[in-house]
Amino acid sequence: MVLFMVGRILQIEALLFLPSLACALVYREWNTALSFAAAAAIAAVLGTLMTVAKRSRIPSRIYAREGFVIVGLAWLAMSAVGALPFVITGAVPSYIDAFFETVSGFTTTGASILTNVEGMSHGLLFWRSFTHWVGGMGVLVFVMAILPTEGGGRSIHIMRAEMPGPIVGKLVPKIRDTAMILYLIYIAMSVLEVVLLLCGGMSFFDSVVHTFGTAGTGGFGIKADSLTSYSPYCQWVIAVFMFLFGVNFNVYYLLILGKLKSVFKSSEMWCYTAVAVAATALISVNIYSIYQNVGDSLRLAAFQVSSVMTTTGYATADFNLWPDFSKALLVLLMFIGASAGSTGGGIKVSRVMLMFKLARRELKRLVHPRSVSVVKLEGKKVEEQTLSNTAVYLLVYALLFFGFFLLVSIDNLDFESTFTAVAACFNNIGPGLASVGPAANYAHLSDFSKIVLSASMLFGRLEIFPVLVAFSLSTWKKK
Amino acid sequence: MVLFMVGRILQIEALLFLPSLACALVYREWNTALSFAAAAAIAAVLGTLMTVAKRSRIPSRIYAREGFVIVGLAWLAMSAVGALPFVITGAVPSYIDAFFETVSGFTTTGASILTNVEGMSHGLLFWRSFTHWVGGMGVLVFVMAILPTEGGGRSIHIMRAEMPGPIVGKLVPKIRDTAMILYLIYIAMSVLEVVLLLCGGMSFFDSVVHTFGTAGTGGFGIKADSLTSYSPYCQWVIAVFMFLFGVNFNVYYLLILGKLKSVFKSSEMWCYTAVAVAATALISVNIYSIYQNVGDSLRLAAFQVSSVMTTTGYATADFNLWPDFSKALLVLLMFIGASAGSTGGGIKVSRVMLMFKLARRELKRLVHPRSVSVVKLEGKKVEEQTLSNTAVYLLVYALLFFGFFLLVSIDNLDFESTFTAVAACFNNIGPGLASVGPAANYAHLSDFSKIVLSASMLFGRLEIFPVLVAFSLSTWKKK
Repeated sequence: MVLFMVGRILQIEALLFLPSLACALVYREWNTALSFAAAAAIAAVLGTLMTVAKRSRIPSRIYAREGFVIVGLAWLAMSAVGALPFVITGAVPSYIDAFFETVSGFTTTGASILTNVEGMSHGLLFWRSFTHWVGGMGVLVFVMAILPTEGGGRSIHIMRAEMPGPIVGKLVPKIRDTAMILYLIYIAMSVLEVVLLLCGGMSFFDSVVHTFGTAGTGGFGIKADSLTSYSPYCQWVIAVFMFLFGVNFNVYYLLILGKLKSVFKSSEMWCYTAVAVAATALISVNIYSIYQNVGDSLRLAAFQVSSVMTTTGYATADFNLWPDFSKALLVLLMFIGASAGSTGGGIKVSRVMLMFKLARRELKRLVHPRSVSVVKLEGKKVEEQTLSNTAVYLLVYALLFFGFFLLVSIDNLDFESTFTAVAACFNNIGPGLASVGPAANYAHLSDFSKIVLSASMLFGRLEIFPVLVAFSLSTWKKK
Repeated sequence: MVLFMVGRILQIEALLFLPSLACALVYREWNTALSFAAAAAIAAVLGTLMTVAKRSRIPSRIYAREGFVIVGLAWLAMSAVGALPFVITGAVPSYIDAFFETVSGFTTTGASILTNVEGMSHGLLFWRSFTHWVGGMGVLVFVMAILPTEGGGRSIHIMRAEMPGPIVGKLVPKIRDTAMILYLIYIAMSVLEVVLLLCGGMSFFDSVVHTFGTAGTGGFGIKADSLTSYSPYCQWVIAVFMFLFGVNFNVYYLLILGKLKSVFKSSEMWCYTAVAVAATALISVNIYSIYQNVGDSLRLAAFQVSSVMTTTGYATADFNLWPDFSKALLVLLMFIGASAGSTGGGIKVSRVMLMFKLARRELKRLVHPRSVSVVKLEGKKVEEQTLSNTAVYLLVYALLFFGFFLLVSIDNLDFESTFTAVAACFNNIGPGLASVGPAANYAHLSDFSKIVLSASMLFGRLEIFPVLVAFSLSTWKKK
């Protein structure tokens, strides 16, 4: 059954290669087009083999465990196959590099090993950014939205495993409709961004590619200096859209329904906005001495805050050269991340809010031992089970972080690079500081580190447990 | 009542100045002696004023809240007064520097702002190290051990607030006896170390001072190069004793009682030993290329691992020059820390063990949603309440860490220095990496950073909550 679903995903991926193939044809890049065709063929054949074999034995329900395993393996398979065009064209000779780049794309990280991004063919650049767009909303959610539902109540577990945040609810009773609504919002916002960028004088190709990167909160650019060379108008548009794609999509659904009151009550949205505004203000002041201009300082601060907090990773300034305080604040934002239910990564604002609430409750308990207090989020009581899950999630997060950190440190980069490389990959941002800063890339890392960081990106994007479950021994023992 | 207890502590501190006074007299340092006498007088007068005023209104029980407040304020008052001799002698002209140094002493951190430690008078060096020895076991535990018990069941809360670890038990029914036993073990081990160091040819003064630093897991040395210039024998003795003082003292009590079986079953001890041995092995291999000698590599690795893991902070090598992997491993050990119920700081091995156990349980639950499993530590079931307290403790720990990190980053050191300065102070180690490495000191930091780091040391030593409670508004509101 797991095999069947993974096979189905590969068939979908064969289709996902087609837009890039078309793009390559438009730009008359025959070599690139050929490699996309080959990759699509491989994906289709592999996928069909996997689905045919198991067709007859599909159980009607998917449990949490299977949901996790399917999502974990599907993402791995997609990345493994998605790396093929890079290798076949010869643009990225090493398969490990290509795999890193593809994982980075699908997980919307945006960490790149390309040393000369401006020399890439249009087809490959399109594919790179397209993986962001697909990965942002979740590939399996996508599948659910477009395929006829195969089986009844089984999809919620897949959605739970793939969607970020501590609590995943359905917007409407039917999962498929929920997935559809989310994707429609996603597409509508993307189209709007493309139009606004076109208005700013950006070329069509650039607009589409950057929109993919913004919508998925990915961050792959097509220039060596990311977005520095575009006009302030375009930078502002992208800054605002990054921020918007970092908002919980439920908020937009409520907006469409006209439930303005509920929208204004969303405490996560307020907290997310407050943190972004406060960080922008602090950094603007802190970097004013460098730029000597209120407008520039504000724009650069807002862009970088929006980019890092939503875990996109675009840059309009080399923030590695900023004062320590700004850098520390950005690193902090890397961890906080965007809202739950958005395309952004990181720990998520709502989890951080729960952390603070748990801390406050503990303090209250120490002072008044017999007080009983309930933790509320969005006006609703949070179950003790959810609280303890969140706490454990954060602990596992910390353990993994230190594990990755230790493994990457074997590479003997400096402390800052190692730490921020792991922070930027695990939280799906892309650029870190020092030798993996926004003006640099990940090409100089060892293959071992690249594999470790690829793993950290998958762990980060899928929020740890799907990957852990898929590769834990006890999952497979009793089958 | 709180005032009374804090006053009593100041009176005790007046007495604690006397050994240093004696030391100064022996070395004929009249100026130093005079300043100790003055400081003792101030402490005695202040303390007496505070105790006399409130004598009549002492309630018979101390609750958790009062326990926290007393411990929090007592440590603050002690440090404020303990800083006086440095200022009066003129050895440390700035009061903030002196306060930093004293907090660093009492909290057994060992971070120093002295740029010329070898030029200090014997009396002050003695006092500096003596604060480690006093702070290691806990000043209030000390008070409970030597004073006639004033009131019945009230002291356990003080002990809980001051002793490190997730669970504080009494060894014997009476608190005072427990405190007494702990102190006797502490003194016996200290005497043994002094004797062994004397056998190695170290002078009496050096032996005593270094024993204070080892026993309290503090780390103030009396040479600019810490312990590098002492013989390998002395380095081994100190390495072993640091390790021994990082073991849960309950283990020694069980040893004395002859309960060897229980000792061998102590999973925290095994885990602590295993981590230390593994880290030593890995670092020995990693640094072999530098020293080209198995014996030296092993000794230096073992010493630094023991020093950092027990949060002592002595150094026999400038580990800032070691490869990144070794540095990362040491930073990791800084966070893990020593065993609960020892004099060491950090998160504590047993908390880290609980973290892993919680993670494993969560994973199990995801795979088999209906399984019910109990977390065990030392063969006993851990209450859900303790588990959730531990989880929340770690979350608050993380929040505070990032808060301190952000505040110190204003100083615009580099990333590595800022991060490890906070890690080294919050976990009570002392030296960090880069500009606060073992060959450097904290003198170049701004006053603001010194205050922040002093606070972080107190938070770290008292395990966060006493300080938080003492300074939280809601504690004082309803009085």
